[in-house]
This record gives sequence, C-alpha cells and structure tokens, in this order.
Amino acid sequence: MAISKQVFRSGPYRDLFAQGVKVGNILTLAGQVGVDSQGKVPEDLVDQTRLAYEQIGAVLKEFGASMDNIVDETIFVTSMTEAMGNVEAVFAARAEAYGGIPEVSNTMVQVVGLVSPEMKIEIKCIAHL
Amino acid sequence: MAISKQVFRSGPYRDLFAQGVKVGNILTLAGQVGVDSQGKVPEDLVDQTRLAYEQIGAVLKEFGASMDNIVDETIFVTSMTEAMGNVEAVFAARAEAYGGIPEVSNTMVQVVGLVSPEMKIEIKCIAHL
Amino acid sequence: MAISKQVFRSGPYRDLFAQGVKVGNILTLAGQVGVDSQGKVPEDLVDQTRLAYEQIGAVLKEFGASMDNIVDETIFVTSMTEAMGNVEAVFAARAEAYGGIPEVSNTMVQVVGLVSPEMKIEIKCIAHL
Repeated sequence: MAISKQVFRSGPYRDLFAQGVKVGNILTLAGQVGVDSQGKVPEDLVDQTRLAYEQIGAVLKEFGASMDNIVDETIFVTSMTEAMGNVEAVFAARAEAYGGIPEVSNTMVQVVGLVSPEMKIEIKCIAHL
Repeated sequence: MAISKQVFRSGPYRDLFAQGVKVGNILTLAGQVGVDSQGKVPEDLVDQTRLAYEQIGAVLKEFGASMDNIVDETIFVTSMTEAMGNVEAVFAARAEAYGGIPEVSNTMVQVVGLVSPEMKIEIKCIAHL
Repeated sequence: MAISKQVFRSGPYRDLFAQGVKVGNILTLAGQVGVDSQGKVPEDLVDQTRLAYEQIGAVLKEFGASMDNIVDETIFVTSMTEAMGNVEAVFAARAEAYGGIPEVSNTMVQVVGLVSPEMKIEIKCIAHL
C-alpha cells in the first residue's frame, strides 16, 4: 500500500533514519538531542535542553511548521535527580523555545542511557500540520 | 502553520504541559501516574495502576471520549520483576478500567525512574476520536 | 464516542493487547521483540533485531501494509554499548527488513529491561496506511 511521505534527513545518521517524516497531517520527529552546530554536546543539562529544542525547531522548519505544531513530547533523561533539581531552568529553556506555555502533552522518564554517554536528554515529538 | 488544538490542563504541572491535546481525530495524552485525588501515591503497584487508568479516563472524559478511544499504550514501569510478578492483578485492574479486553497495542519497558521516586508505573496513551 | 478499530491479535498476550490497531489511516503496533516461531529468543542482538522486524512485517501484512508504511520507530535496547558496538550489523538487519534506507524517524534509548530478561531489543512502530 503505497503512501506518500515527505522526509527530512540531516546529520551523521542521515543514511539510517530521517529526522522528520510527514504523511497526511502527521509529522513524526526523530528524538532530538543537545548537539551544537559543531556536533559537540555541552555538559550542562539546560544547555542540552536548549539545543535539543533548537534541533526540533530546525526539523519543523523544513516542513514549513513551527513549535506550535507539536502536540506531544516524550522526554528521556539520564538523571531524574538532575532534571528535577533543575526543573525550573529546564522548563524555562523549553518555554523560551515554544515562546510561552506549550499546548503539548508530555511524558518524562529516566532511562539508562542515550546513544552517546555524554547525552543527558533526548526529546521525541509528534507534530500535526 | 496554525493548527487548532483542544487542550486540557490539570494538576500541579498545568503550567508546564497539557494532560491531553486533540488535533483533528488524534488525542495525545500525557503519561499518567498512580496519584489519588489528594495527590498521594499508594505504595502498591496494582493500586497505582488502577489510579493511573482513572486519570486516563478522566482526561478522555474532558474530550467527550472514553477508554474505547485509546489505540496505543506505552507502559513504563520501574520494576519489571514486580510488574510481571503481579501481572494478573495489574492486567485485571487494566481490564476493569477498559471494561473488557482492550483493542489497544501495548509496549511495556522498565525504566530507571519516573518523575517521583514513589511512582512505579506511568502509562502514556494515544487515542483516536 | 464510538470509533471503528481494526485489530490484529496474536501470540501469548493475545488476550491482553493487540499487536496492531488501525483507526482511520493510522496503525499503531505493539512493541515487537526478537522471538522466533517457536517462541525462543536467540542470544545474539542482531538475530533478535532481524526477528523483531520479521514480527513487525507480519503485523503489517495483516493490515495489507508493508514496511514502507512505517513512519516512526522507537527502539528500546538493554545495552547501548552492545547496540552501538554492533551498530552496522544491527542497522544492516534493519535495512534488509526495509529493503533499503527507510523513510522513518527513529529514537533509540537504553532501558533497564524488557518483558523477559533475555530480550535485548524491542521496537515500537507507528505506521500510516
């Protein structure tokens, strides 16, 4: 059953998976991590959060969308203690990315690890266009 | 690209995220945990499961929907040993919430932790209205 | 609010949840693990990966769909070290299942454990038909 996908690929894993896939009105995004433009992952969780949302914004832009289009987030952190200990700063970085209080459902869980050991947060989003 | 979202907010995190977001026919729910009406988390996993499904039912109700509308669940537990050791009681609480065998796809994984250390289960659902 | 679901059930958990649920154009799949036709889980991660994708393909087939219909994957592994240490073989097994570079968004995280201790990978997919 053929479907028509719109796909955006980027970065070191571009031959493995897409950063965003749009079919109909649904856009699924790959989990985004806190990597800067040089591929460096800062140590600070809040900095990683800010960068992860920048990546999300960049993927959305490729589809003519913005943060307003996100409907659901799953946040994977490697330390809930660190996340909740910095919860105001983490969510302030998020609020800045969204430009206010987002209309987004959210789930946050602590996992053992992400793709690279220095990563502390990965954010997986579903958007609607 | 403006989209029209219907949003339900509730509880201590109401300024951070929504408990449910509906766009088109899709309703995404925030992960629900086993908190009672006083904000207390019972120690027992089965009690937490029952309460988490009550929360899910309450969110669905805000959108004029019911458990029948759920299509997919991701269950995050903090101990698979405890979950599988009580699998019949856990799934009986779930069957009671659904009023029978649910028509729902399911994924269950063990994470390191949820937002608060006393939480043993978090259930993230996607519904279709 | 009644919705019309198409459901596929199979295997030991058939009375607990569905392997696939289709409503409208969206098909959600239960997380698939590396179990062979005798219910045995091979020790090797790459073998488990191949079998998990076979299961995914089998669920899709029940809905008249194929791997091309998948839009999003969440991969839960129990050892990122093992997954990344075998990343080429793991993704080669995946590429073989898809018949090329998939147009799929992807998130991979390390969890503590899956339903059975011998399971090393579980793959949760969303498809569009």
